[in-house]
Amino acid sequence: MKIFAYGIREDEKSSIENWKSANPDVEVDYTDQTLTPETATLAKGASGIVTLQTTPYERESLKILKDEGISNISIRNVGYDNFNFDDLKEFNFKLSNVPVYSPNAIAEHAVLLIGRLLRRIPEVDTKFDNGDFTWAPTIGKEYREQTVGVIGTGHIGRVAIQMLQGFGAKVIAYDVYHNEAIEKQGLYVDTLEELYQQADVITLHVPLTSDNAYMIDEKAIEQMKDGVYLINCARGELISNDALIKGLDSGKIAGAGLDVLDHENNVFGKKWGSINNLPDPTIKNLAERQNVIITPHNAFYTETAIWNMIEVSFDSNKDLIEGKIPDTLVYSKK
Amino acid sequence: MKIFAYGIREDEKSSIENWKSANPDVEVDYTDQTLTPETATLAKGASGIVTLQTTPYERESLKILKDEGISNISIRNVGYDNFNFDDLKEFNFKLSNVPVYSPNAIAEHAVLLIGRLLRRIPEVDTKFDNGDFTWAPTIGKEYREQTVGVIGTGHIGRVAIQMLQGFGAKVIAYDVYHNEAIEKQGLYVDTLEELYQQADVITLHVPLTSDNAYMIDEKAIEQMKDGVYLINCARGELISNDALIKGLDSGKIAGAGLDVLDHENNVFGKKWGSINNLPDPTIKNLAERQNVIITPHNAFYTETAIWNMIEVSFDSNKDLIEGKIPDTLVYSKK
Repeated sequence: MKIFAYGIREDEKSSIENWKSANPDVEVDYTDQTLTPETATLAKGASGIVTLQTTPYERESLKILKDEGISNISIRNVGYDNFNFDDLKEFNFKLSNVPVYSPNAIAEHAVLLIGRLLRRIPEVDTKFDNGDFTWAPTIGKEYREQTVGVIGTGHIGRVAIQMLQGFGAKVIAYDVYHNEAIEKQGLYVDTLEELYQQADVITLHVPLTSDNAYMIDEKAIEQMKDGVYLINCARGELISNDALIKGLDSGKIAGAGLDVLDHENNVFGKKWGSINNLPDPTIKNLAERQNVIITPHNAFYTETAIWNMIEVSFDSNKDLIEGKIPDTLVYSKK
Repeated sequence: MKIFAYGIREDEKSSIENWKSANPDVEVDYTDQTLTPETATLAKGASGIVTLQTTPYERESLKILKDEGISNISIRNVGYDNFNFDDLKEFNFKLSNVPVYSPNAIAEHAVLLIGRLLRRIPEVDTKFDNGDFTWAPTIGKEYREQTVGVIGTGHIGRVAIQMLQGFGAKVIAYDVYHNEAIEKQGLYVDTLEELYQQADVITLHVPLTSDNAYMIDEKAIEQMKDGVYLINCARGELISNDALIKGLDSGKIAGAGLDVLDHENNVFGKKWGSINNLPDPTIKNLAERQNVIITPHNAFYTETAIWNMIEVSFDSNKDLIEGKIPDTLVYSKK
């Protein structure tokens, strides 16, 4: 049995070696290139492929894989919106994903962003860089004095709640779907309005849906407490950049921690030499503020997450090749 | 009844106003100057003083206070080693302190330093400043994969343990005095050697005593795991700077988070214009490293801590003036 993997990065190689050691019966080969009509033939001789890319999977690439006798595709990430399911059906592919790789990675990034804003670490860091070793007037706030509103109580939101409670913060939560354990703790408020009115810090842990795009707009921000902190490690389109800037300008919003940004593809993943060169004026505006911390969609990026992405995707691909149905199955003709 | 306060900073004033509102029967006045023979007469008419300074309290200052009829001194901090107790006895002063103002402030600072090192935030921040919005290769580690060794399980260490457990870290602890709750959890190891051998991260929460100065020396570091992270938010003299630098140079120590430093008085509390201008070459060496985060002894510096320092010191001073014995009493002639 052979599995061929596309788009393998340097940081994934040791995890692949680990998986190979645990599965000596499987031959594994890989490339750093993504799956295209040009690279599809590299998988020749394999029974399944493991892949990860953000661009669409082309019909021609899939056709070549099919012609090579490959019918099992396992992606290393969650989202499969870059597949055309008509193509998968026509060529009779089975598809699996990695639905959860590390809720902790993202939750701890969000919780760290809260702490870095509360303790004014960007300002303290700038003082340090300027050789200023005084502590006043950069006084911090403590987690335990905050009411933190967690929007979304899926895997990530629930882990974030545990972390925040470890710090002694008061947590309130909102979700359309109530989780039993969070319900038992009595953390849910009934409406987003209630959460906005009570929370000193708001952190988003919901998927993007057609209903919640730009949920954090001018109207939502108006309902929040003065001096609120906003954290977004979910999806950029949940927050209107213009409304955020307006809230920061007025002081309504005391600070923001953003691992995702509306229109982030304009700037993330690239090297600009300096913040001054950012081509998106709205993102540049946010990036220049000392009370805004932007990270380039790297909340997920831990050794544990990478290992889980490799392990689950390769395990799933092996299952598919052996005719088993993994929990991670996304699509199968019948 | 009147209380006069010395060394009041800007960030303390709103707390003083709060305390005055809650104690309308007490007249309060203050100065930003410290207590010296020149400023001692400012307290004229008061029955007690509240003070905070790091330099020695001079005999002459105390004599003037005594001559003004003042016999109650309440410091806003923990340490009273800058008082000569023979003077206190001769002039018949009562002295109180603030033994605990916010264990959370210091514990969360230590826990944040751990996260900032594990997630390589100084490197990510430098990339951001250079307009580099790629995430690889700055991959992070998660708290939950770490065994964190907490040395010292007093107020601060115990709160740090709760926070670390919220993140899912495995905690082990060492202290000469065992705390019952920590004992029940089975967290204690028997020797420092055991802790050094098992811990991926070590955080210090012990007071400085004549026994533990430079406890983290070359010999201790040799016993630690390769790639260990060291956190010190306790006292600078617990770690040998030279041994630390040697460990960082060899890669034995992967990173350090330091809110205190041996010889910190050479650099802390002052503005040097740039790290390049630091007069202490050893501290400059540490400050220039991307895997070392130095903060200027500001772990304690939160709004909650400042409020507690004001509230407890003024409450204690009022008690002393009224002839009551506060829990915070440090010295009284009989």
